[in-house]
Amino acid sequence: MHGEFELINRWLAPAHASTMDTGVVLGVGDDACLLSPTAGQQLVVSVDTSVEGHHFPAKAPASAVGHRALAVSLSDLAAMGARPRWCLMSLALPVSDAAWVAEFAKGFHALCDAAKVNLVGGDVTAGECAVSVTVMGEVEPARALRRSGARAGDILAVTGALGGGAGGLAAWQAGEHDLQHPLVSRYLLPQPRLEAGRVLAELASSAIDISDGLLADLGHVLEASKLGAKLDAQAIPLAEGLVDLLGEEGAMQAALSGGDDYELLVTLAPERLAAAQAELASFGLALTEIGRLVEGSGIDGVKMPTKAGWQHFSGGEP
Amino acid sequence: MHGEFELINRWLAPAHASTMDTGVVLGVGDDACLLSPTAGQQLVVSVDTSVEGHHFPAKAPASAVGHRALAVSLSDLAAMGARPRWCLMSLALPVSDAAWVAEFAKGFHALCDAAKVNLVGGDVTAGECAVSVTVMGEVEPARALRRSGARAGDILAVTGALGGGAGGLAAWQAGEHDLQHPLVSRYLLPQPRLEAGRVLAELASSAIDISDGLLADLGHVLEASKLGAKLDAQAIPLAEGLVDLLGEEGAMQAALSGGDDYELLVTLAPERLAAAQAELASFGLALTEIGRLVEGSGIDGVKMPTKAGWQHFSGGEP
Repeated sequence: MHGEFELINRWLAPAHASTMDTGVVLGVGDDACLLSPTAGQQLVVSVDTSVEGHHFPAKAPASAVGHRALAVSLSDLAAMGARPRWCLMSLALPVSDAAWVAEFAKGFHALCDAAKVNLVGGDVTAGECAVSVTVMGEVEPARALRRSGARAGDILAVTGALGGGAGGLAAWQAGEHDLQHPLVSRYLLPQPRLEAGRVLAELASSAIDISDGLLADLGHVLEASKLGAKLDAQAIPLAEGLVDLLGEEGAMQAALSGGDDYELLVTLAPERLAAAQAELASFGLALTEIGRLVEGSGIDGVKMPTKAGWQHFSGGEP
Repeated sequence: MHGEFELINRWLAPAHASTMDTGVVLGVGDDACLLSPTAGQQLVVSVDTSVEGHHFPAKAPASAVGHRALAVSLSDLAAMGARPRWCLMSLALPVSDAAWVAEFAKGFHALCDAAKVNLVGGDVTAGECAVSVTVMGEVEPARALRRSGARAGDILAVTGALGGGAGGLAAWQAGEHDLQHPLVSRYLLPQPRLEAGRVLAELASSAIDISDGLLADLGHVLEASKLGAKLDAQAIPLAEGLVDLLGEEGAMQAALSGGDDYELLVTLAPERLAAAQAELASFGLALTEIGRLVEGSGIDGVKMPTKAGWQHFSGGEP
């Protein structure tokens, strides 16, 4: 058994070698960290909690749990078009399992490095296995992508492909536990679309990340922008292997309502679509037109499922 | 049963009436909040998680759970001498209990108002009852109180009185569940010493908040400052009613190692003590000299208990 301090120091401290340009004046190890925000920028902050058995399977590899907990928070910064800078992380564990924590930290720190985000605070407590990650980023004033910015006539587009989150969960539940499996990887190792978010901040009128499912998240944009949408369901890009696993209807259902995709759903003026597609293609990411925004309300073009989006309190065990 | 969004909206949204000078460009309701930090200030950020059955009793009143979860995080800002500005909150709940959440929110928001901190983000998930609060504050550059700033010859002083956290827990366990009880109140409704922290940022050389117990937290200061300390155990101010409840030895043990007091332990040059005491007295808070810092290491003047400070992984149920 390790005490709280020892555990924290062992796996938080290594990430805090002070490097240039991190904005970290004082990292982990005091009552709070001290940060130096960039003059003239706005702060963008979000928190997401992942609970074992609700947001990730109890037997998920620890490194994937660490990656995923940070990824879902970073996805919120991507949706705002922000540049990630710092994060804080709270980990609750039923027992102090040093090997698990080391693997968890490996997944967490690897994504920190890839996303250029510095871990600047955290705590470790006893409790049901859960991870809460606060991410902080920066964005130029008036540049952040809000849900409310969509306009009638805008094109609706998504990055990457949808349904992989739900498909990966289904594959996992069917016994496929290989992180290299394309769908399992989409579910347990989602890639926050940070680079796309930065590009789209210059070109899109609104954005949201698809965590609750396309229909539910589109609903949030429509509500915030006071508009309706006409979806072209056949145009929705489906994750690799999804139809094989779930059949055509199941795949469509996963893409519309499965959630956990962490792709970006954006709206943009039609004349900007080609430029946005070219920018995203430069780093290998598709941006697919899937509909239009219209005056009014509601979503046309799909049979609405009874359950639109994942609701945590009604969701089952992964 | 309420879905995640409904629950969040019902209790997070009311706090977000935009007022002047909050620095909140965009509050709860998008993928992330947008904040406008004060030019030239450093950001001070900390996170603390409170888990039912570990950090607060399962039957604690919901309003106290809300207050306490925020208070323990704000206490970290107090210890840095920072001015609190914003917070984010993650709540996990086994069932969606609207009445409990309403009471929880009442306690949380009341302290938000008192501390002038704006709730700008959060999430609600299914899980064992736990609250994770990230607080963000600001401080003038080079003004933050660090653990490493103590100097040999400095006076060691504490705000308020100690042992109330452990005493309140003992009283609670003995069946005293009245929040008006002085010790129970100290345990369940701790008051972060924000005003004192702001004053002491001008006068003290280092500070830490007493969450793990006087000896453990003093140990952190000594380690960071590479010094030793000579404590005057008889000078330690004990919480009201503590000796009556626990006896003299038990009270001293609670003050030395109980933790959960959320008072500030500060070091300051002897010639500054009177000024600091006068400032804190102006808002009714005592600052008591309890020892000196010396060259060397370790703590003299008290019989060291075998267990110095609360270690969450070895702690029992409250």
